Amino acid sequence: MVQGEGRDVTYTQIDYKVADRIATITLNRPDRLNAFTFTMRNELLDVFDRIDADDEVRAVVVTGAGRAFCAGADLQAGGDTFNKDKSLEMFGGDDLLEDGTPRDGGGTVALRIARCLKPVIAAFNGAAVGVGVTMTLPMDIRLASEKAKFGFVFARRGIVAEAASSWFLPRVVGISQAMEWVATGRVFDAREALAGRLVSRVCPPEELLPAAYALAREIADNTSAVSVAAIRRLMWSGLSASSPWEAHRADSRLMAELGAAPDAAEGVTSFLEKRPAAFPMRVSTDLPPQVPDWPRP
Amino acid sequence: MVQGEGRDVTYTQIDYKVADRIATITLNRPDRLNAFTFTMRNELLDVFDRIDADDEVRAVVVTGAGRAFCAGADLQAGGDTFNKDKSLEMFGGDDLLEDGTPRDGGGTVALRIARCLKPVIAAFNGAAVGVGVTMTLPMDIRLASEKAKFGFVFARRGIVAEAASSWFLPRVVGISQAMEWVATGRVFDAREALAGRLVSRVCPPEELLPAAYALAREIADNTSAVSVAAIRRLMWSGLSASSPWEAHRADSRLMAELGAAPDAAEGVTSFLEKRPAAFPMRVSTDLPPQVPDWPRP
Amino acid sequence: MVQGEGRDVTYTQIDYKVADRIATITLNRPDRLNAFTFTMRNELLDVFDRIDADDEVRAVVVTGAGRAFCAGADLQAGGDTFNKDKSLEMFGGDDLLEDGTPRDGGGTVALRIARCLKPVIAAFNGAAVGVGVTMTLPMDIRLASEKAKFGFVFARRGIVAEAASSWFLPRVVGISQAMEWVATGRVFDAREALAGRLVSRVCPPEELLPAAYALAREIADNTSAVSVAAIRRLMWSGLSASSPWEAHRADSRLMAELGAAPDAAEGVTSFLEKRPAAFPMRVSTDLPPQVPDWPRP
Repeated sequence: MVQGEGRDVTYTQIDYKVADRIATITLNRPDRLNAFTFTMRNELLDVFDRIDADDEVRAVVVTGAGRAFCAGADLQAGGDTFNKDKSLEMFGGDDLLEDGTPRDGGGTVALRIARCLKPVIAAFNGAAVGVGVTMTLPMDIRLASEKAKFGFVFARRGIVAEAASSWFLPRVVGISQAMEWVATGRVFDAREALAGRLVSRVCPPEELLPAAYALAREIADNTSAVSVAAIRRLMWSGLSASSPWEAHRADSRLMAELGAAPDAAEGVTSFLEKRPAAFPMRVSTDLPPQVPDWPRP
Repeated sequence: MVQGEGRDVTYTQIDYKVADRIATITLNRPDRLNAFTFTMRNELLDVFDRIDADDEVRAVVVTGAGRAFCAGADLQAGGDTFNKDKSLEMFGGDDLLEDGTPRDGGGTVALRIARCLKPVIAAFNGAAVGVGVTMTLPMDIRLASEKAKFGFVFARRGIVAEAASSWFLPRVVGISQAMEWVATGRVFDAREALAGRLVSRVCPPEELLPAAYALAREIADNTSAVSVAAIRRLMWSGLSASSPWEAHRADSRLMAELGAAPDAAEGVTSFLEKRPAAFPMRVSTDLPPQVPDWPRP
Repeated sequence: MVQGEGRDVTYTQIDYKVADRIATITLNRPDRLNAFTFTMRNELLDVFDRIDADDEVRAVVVTGAGRAFCAGADLQAGGDTFNKDKSLEMFGGDDLLEDGTPRDGGGTVALRIARCLKPVIAAFNGAAVGVGVTMTLPMDIRLASEKAKFGFVFARRGIVAEAASSWFLPRVVGISQAMEWVATGRVFDAREALAGRLVSRVCPPEELLPAAYALAREIADNTSAVSVAAIRRLMWSGLSASSPWEAHRADSRLMAELGAAPDAAEGVTSFLEKRPAAFPMRVSTDLPPQVPDWPRP
């Protein structure tokens, strides 16, 4: 259910609200530990489109309802859970690779988040297992409650690490830490996640959301929305760039374009005048075409 | 010499045994501090083929006999050691790049390990210098005894960092730490290796092999061998992938294939029944063709 | 102004000297907190050409005069600072991408440093903000005084992170730390820089330059200049390589070439004779053509 500010979309497995220019997505199936389904996938894809289109949203916090963040794929179909011919909960009929293979649902969400125009902060209130953790890897910042637990348990279920995690995980935590977690499939606590740099902070439970909102606030209150959108795309696509020369081409074009635009004038002027900036540009209308994007499969 | 379980291959510079589904490779020239030779290269290439083909092997531990792990290239040929026209100990006549350049021996081993279908754990019992450390970079996990020492000493010998370490080292420890170690060529201790994330743990000497075997045990006892093989290839090739979209294609195909296979049914069913899984699939016969591989030079 | 050893080039915004085979570049506009200009850009490009050509230089230290390292782009032009049509201080007329876009000035410096044949050490004596920090990302090692401050403040100025930092920053500090710093645009202290692995050490102010020179000394006194040049290019281009097989080709060719050359003979012989090496080869004349380089835009 979408709350606040007159929105009228109904979600059934996530909750969405916007307040003070910060969006909150709450994975919302607490009776199933917020287990991931094809419906949740579709709602997440929809909500990130909504977020990108809404200039009121400057940053996003993702958390879970109840005691878990997301327990992974919903296993109600038992041994058929991951069988593409039998499990409609995991595979949609119409989202296929060019060779007809159904696209992995966690991957469709992860790739959507990687392209998001707003920074995304994961606030792990509890267990994040399987796709429950891999879908957060393209988020920008991950914070954990002391009660959070994590598991890249795929090898214990007879499947593979998904959600494009073979690309994201070694880049986020390093290949050695990635391999230790995926090869053992162990469930580990927040301290191990912090030591392994999967999360950047561990908080007492009651301080988790305040910490996430403080970060989102720091972004919303101080920065140009167009700059942040352009930089986010630059950084994530820079992680894919074939060389720094490619990055140099991209940022030269954006510096030329944005350097002559109103937010740059306001950004420098307000700084020199020692007053808060009031950036006039909007992501929905003013994002330059030079902002990089990834091809969709 | 190959020990145990009726194997009949004789190695002369390494020792190989398999016990409880864990293989141990021991670099075994203790009178030469296990210095690397072309013979050792060939034996390592052979043993990793053996490991990939043997379904009894679920994980691999690599260590050294005596007080060193591997002192680097054997320098018996003195100033001619690295001269390709004079040093048969370092260069084999028949393993050439397409332009006729002899392939670097450490690199042939490193690339073979990068493709291995089983997780590989380095247990540094003592000094690991030159190729003695670079050949371990494509291993998944590195543990060190308090007595271990390390050195990327190439610049002190007038040569270059080899074994494809210009690809592996900056990805394992970061470019800044990599450059500090290769530009100074310094020899450093286990504490510095841990701080620089070259190893993930430092143990008292008598706890080193138990720690390595405990990790191998965690893999062997809990996971699907086919899943681990597929995930290992996904992760290492994901580190090379040009974008997360490429990873998404690869893991979608493997999820479609393995999600409908017996190990996934057993993995989910056993989890729901709260019993240990008994995965039926075998790497030697059941590895799907979608598992990625790298081209060989 | 170039000091020492008979050099006669005059710089106006940097200071350059060479002593004991170590070059020092000092950003030298202390009354403007060493703010970056197009003139400084040109002087930096020139001095790195000079460094590469001078066999007396074995390593480079970069620091700032007065209390700052570099406060970022000089904002004297106010709201027009980043406007390519109005700000001659930031954009040169003759350095364009193939589509006519003016090349970002910080990027031209960063890419020049990435190709440098000598290791480069940043010694942050004070604030390093905007291009003041992004231009140091292709340096090999970064050390900070306790008084240093840092800020990737681009989003607070309405522009984007430049100097090819979308390529360098996520590789140096990881994508999550990179995104936290660039999305918030916050100014942070040396402790946060150390925790986030932007710098490898924090020193009391009076110990900063001695620490930088000690590292430079360790390189200059112990290593082959040709090896270090080749390895530096291997490592930085290895970070761009599409696979470890590409790195293997490059290092096989360099091992074949350098392994048969005089520095390798001296490096091994001196080690076996337990005496300091006296490497005969020179970067200016003896660098093999197999040493990789990046294309220039």
